[in-house]
Formats: sequence, C-alpha cells, structure tokens
Amino acid sequence: MFKRSSILILLMVASALASAQTSRHATNPRDAIRKADQDWLRVFAAKDLTKSVDFVIAGGSVLAPNAPIATGHDAISKSFAGFFALPDLKIEWRPNKVEVARSGEMGYSTGAYHMTFKDPSGKTIEDRGKYVTVWKKQRGRWLVAYDIFNSDLSATP
Amino acid sequence: MFKRSSILILLMVASALASAQTSRHATNPRDAIRKADQDWLRVFAAKDLTKSVDFVIAGGSVLAPNAPIATGHDAISKSFAGFFALPDLKIEWRPNKVEVARSGEMGYSTGAYHMTFKDPSGKTIEDRGKYVTVWKKQRGRWLVAYDIFNSDLSATP
Repeated sequence: MFKRSSILILLMVASALASAQTSRHATNPRDAIRKADQDWLRVFAAKDLTKSVDFVIAGGSVLAPNAPIATGHDAISKSFAGFFALPDLKIEWRPNKVEVARSGEMGYSTGAYHMTFKDPSGKTIEDRGKYVTVWKKQRGRWLVAYDIFNSDLSATP
Repeated sequence: MFKRSSILILLMVASALASAQTSRHATNPRDAIRKADQDWLRVFAAKDLTKSVDFVIAGGSVLAPNAPIATGHDAISKSFAGFFALPDLKIEWRPNKVEVARSGEMGYSTGAYHMTFKDPSGKTIEDRGKYVTVWKKQRGRWLVAYDIFNSDLSATP
C-alpha cells in the first residue's frame, strides 16, 4: 500500500512538473520573443530572403547603419538582398535581454551580433556590434516592427 | 428663451470639447512619450550632463555607433560627456512614430536626428541618421531603457 501510494504521489508530482513546464514554455512571452529572435536569425543566416522579410510586419522598418531607413517589405527585401550578396557572409546574433509589456502584444530583444564576409580582394572582413529589435504580436505571431543595429568597431580602422 | 437655450447649448458643447481635449492630452501615453523624447532632446542639446543621464533608467543602455554598449549611469555619463566635448556640437532629433503598449508601461519612439560639430581643423562635420528609443514608465515618469542610433551617411565619405 505504501509503495503504491508513493508511486502515485511520484506520478502526480511528475505530471504537475511536466504541466508547469509545458505551460511555462507555451505562455512565457519572453521565451516566445527569444525564440522568434533566434528563428529569424536561422532564416537570415540561411539567406532565405522571403522568410527573412516575412518576419517583419507590413510597414515595419529596418534601420541599417550607413543607409537610409528601409520601411515596408519591398525596401527591406532590397536591403536584405544586399546583405545576402556579400561574398561568404556568415552572421549570428544572440539576445542578452528580452522584455515584454504586461499587455503581451509588444516587446523587444537586444543583444550582440557578429558577422564576417569577404571583400572584393578576398580578405575576410569582420564586424561585431549590437542591436535592438522591437517586436509586435499579430495574430498570435511575434513579428519585427523595428530592427536597428550598429558596429562596436571604430569607424576608421 | 430661444436665445438663452442656444447660449446654454453652446456652453455645454464648448465645455464638452474642452474636457475631451484636456483628458486626451492628460492621458494619451503617446503624447507623454513624445514629450519625454523632446524634453530629453532639450537637456541633451543644452549639454546638461546630469539631466541627460537622469532620463535613463538605472541599468539602461545607450548603444552608440562605433563604440561598445554603455550600460548604467556611469558608462552613459562618459559616453554623453564625449559627445558634449565635440566642438560646437549642435544636435536635434524628432520622433516620426511613437507607440505604447496597451498596458501603458512600455513604449518606443523612433525618428531622425541631425547634428553638426567642428573637427580639429575647424571644418564643420555634418551627420544625419535615425534612432529607436525604448521607454519605460517608472513612478509615473517615462525613462529611457535603450537608446540606439546610426548614420544614414555612407561609411566612406
């Protein structure tokens, strides 16, 4: 009898823990934005232009350094295509902070990026910097409203 | 009698309009962030270091181009002091979009900046670009959580 109830209690605890974990993963909006941030990186690093642009809301903006603001899918598509054309581009970024408004429809991720590509002479150019991405939830999906970044490196190397 | 009731109606309409306008101005959080954005510009353009830094929450960050991230009042103070030391610095910015979460404690402003300063030879250097500022409401006041900007101009002039 003792053994049986112990197993029952263990099962109940395990089930409670599992459900708590499932619900935390499903409902924590910080985790959802963090995941969206890294899902976006995945399609961007893979140079998937359509999927990369689709992460941005209609009318959203990408604010890249040394270029005018790109607003809307057409302008952002051109901006991203320019990036993807960089020879041997490798890029990654990681959020070090994610926050969500209590109302759950707006948030941001911010962190660091690192990228390398080859210049026309074949020399590897390295850049690292920081970014802020403003996210909005539309029809259950987190999408980019604004993305802005800049380099940590000196302007005159 | 007709005249009297007409005046009464006019007074009621005027009063209703006035109260609608007052309440809109007092409670619209977009207007509050827009005002904070421009209040910040005012103390920044005046090179008031203490007031400029006090617009940033404790632990907030300024992400300036070609420099590492500045987090916390000490680091931000150093970063702003560097700006203010630029000879004959003139700066202005204007938000072209302000949004606030429904919960009213988080929002952002984004727009364009323009600045001029003199280089060591006395030549006027001009820069224009764009920014995103993430705002948080703390004890009734809108403060900067993250501020990031970059230039529209080509990196190699």
